[in-house]
Amino acid sequence: MGNVDWIAVDWGTTHMRVWLMAKDGQMIEARSSDRGMGALAPEGFEIALLALISDVLGQAPMPVVICGMAGAKQGWAEAPYASVPCAPPDPRSGRRVETENARLQVTILSGVSQSNPADVMRGEETQIKGLIATQPTFDGVACLPGTHTKWAHLSAGEIVSFQTFMTGELFALLSQQSVLRHSMALTGWDDDAFAVAVDEAMSRPQAVAAKLFGLRAQALLGGLDDVSARARLSGLLIGIELAAARPYWLGQQVALIGAASSADAYDAALSAQGVPTLRHNPTDMTLAGLRAAYSELEQS
Amino acid sequence: MGNVDWIAVDWGTTHMRVWLMAKDGQMIEARSSDRGMGALAPEGFEIALLALISDVLGQAPMPVVICGMAGAKQGWAEAPYASVPCAPPDPRSGRRVETENARLQVTILSGVSQSNPADVMRGEETQIKGLIATQPTFDGVACLPGTHTKWAHLSAGEIVSFQTFMTGELFALLSQQSVLRHSMALTGWDDDAFAVAVDEAMSRPQAVAAKLFGLRAQALLGGLDDVSARARLSGLLIGIELAAARPYWLGQQVALIGAASSADAYDAALSAQGVPTLRHNPTDMTLAGLRAAYSELEQS
Repeated sequence: MGNVDWIAVDWGTTHMRVWLMAKDGQMIEARSSDRGMGALAPEGFEIALLALISDVLGQAPMPVVICGMAGAKQGWAEAPYASVPCAPPDPRSGRRVETENARLQVTILSGVSQSNPADVMRGEETQIKGLIATQPTFDGVACLPGTHTKWAHLSAGEIVSFQTFMTGELFALLSQQSVLRHSMALTGWDDDAFAVAVDEAMSRPQAVAAKLFGLRAQALLGGLDDVSARARLSGLLIGIELAAARPYWLGQQVALIGAASSADAYDAALSAQGVPTLRHNPTDMTLAGLRAAYSELEQS
Repeated sequence: MGNVDWIAVDWGTTHMRVWLMAKDGQMIEARSSDRGMGALAPEGFEIALLALISDVLGQAPMPVVICGMAGAKQGWAEAPYASVPCAPPDPRSGRRVETENARLQVTILSGVSQSNPADVMRGEETQIKGLIATQPTFDGVACLPGTHTKWAHLSAGEIVSFQTFMTGELFALLSQQSVLRHSMALTGWDDDAFAVAVDEAMSRPQAVAAKLFGLRAQALLGGLDDVSARARLSGLLIGIELAAARPYWLGQQVALIGAASSADAYDAALSAQGVPTLRHNPTDMTLAGLRAAYSELEQS
């Protein structure tokens, strides 16, 4: 293994991901565990981190740069929010965390907040930092599909405004825990059913409320297979999101930063509206953002 | 105890309710258990029923008239659907169920279906039967708030069309299982927060998609207490339902058949739109419908 100079961490609600990094920014090794913020009390974070990295610690303090929900109120230690409009926060505004183990030098990066309409992000600002670091001239809109999809207006290196949609969480709850689960495949896709549903929801957003139970009724009455039902549910939810997010994407180019399956769905829906999209790997963007934060810390 | 001549049963997904009835339609005693359809395999239904009524069985077969999810595909025995437009189904179209115990004479009432838009009901048609039995001249709209709220156009004793909304289930999932649960009281109400949210959702239905996570963000940023958040979530969901159900209630009188808390919310939202409402006790309507069904069976 090469010389580990610092550690990059993306600490989410359900998982933590750790990358061992060389001085020059090369990633040496990726590690992960399921000890997300939601599963840990404050005193558990240092232990969970050491479980993944203690073998690479030397005598000198090891810089550890963390983004994500570890900085939430219920996390390891609360990191502040920077308010829009602002650049993705400087790491020196983040939270330095005192550790039991003197060989750790932990910084949790700040999140970003917006007062009106009220909104918050923790983690996505680092992916946006990565986007700006790798494409300094990008002006436009970033869409980060996920459990809580974020849309952000970016201009001149700053986040101008942003908006969060619970689309991913709604899809999971409705497809796995509601009465619709009886009519819904766990995997599989139907492009046409998705496209039609997006269109219906965008043109009459209130119809989504009426059409959800319709998925169950259509299945009971024999008119809808479980794979089409799954794609149709996704289409209804992404469609009402796109109707609400129209001020973000209309006439813009959209940088899509998300896992393949959900980014594919947004890509298809946006392309049908004639919106040009650029795809970015979300792990690459997280790492680029953490790298940028580390080098800012080093310069200070 | 008076002489029990027949048994009325409302067998839902999570509970069963049984009423011991006299020949003249008087209710002698109410009993209930948590052995709903969802907790039973087909062979469990007779046992669950006998557990509540075996002490009142005599030598002669006891008529048992059942409405609700016991007639679903996953229930005791599948009862058919009548298709709209139709009167609430005649009990003779229902499903006679053979029982091990010869002293039971079980009829499960039919549900009602609609082909376009696809929709189904099991149980609510019996409450509508009760409404029509007690108010034969009623012409207008019935709204049955609940886990799956139903709206039905009634005319000349028939269900002309209907539409189901998952509003109650969505509220339960979002308030108890989503990220919003951290910002949400389990009880309590705020009339103003509810009314404002209904109004916002009705005037811009797509905004509901954007405003859900806003409840969490507002709470985190200190701008929303947990009781107002609960009322506001309910208002957003009922508001988008009312926007979609406008063809049902616009210019109509609405018969509201639902438990106090949810019917109160619909009542407030409809009254704010200038829609006259009439409240009916849901248990009274179920019993009136089962009574009407029993007397039709007796006449045959």
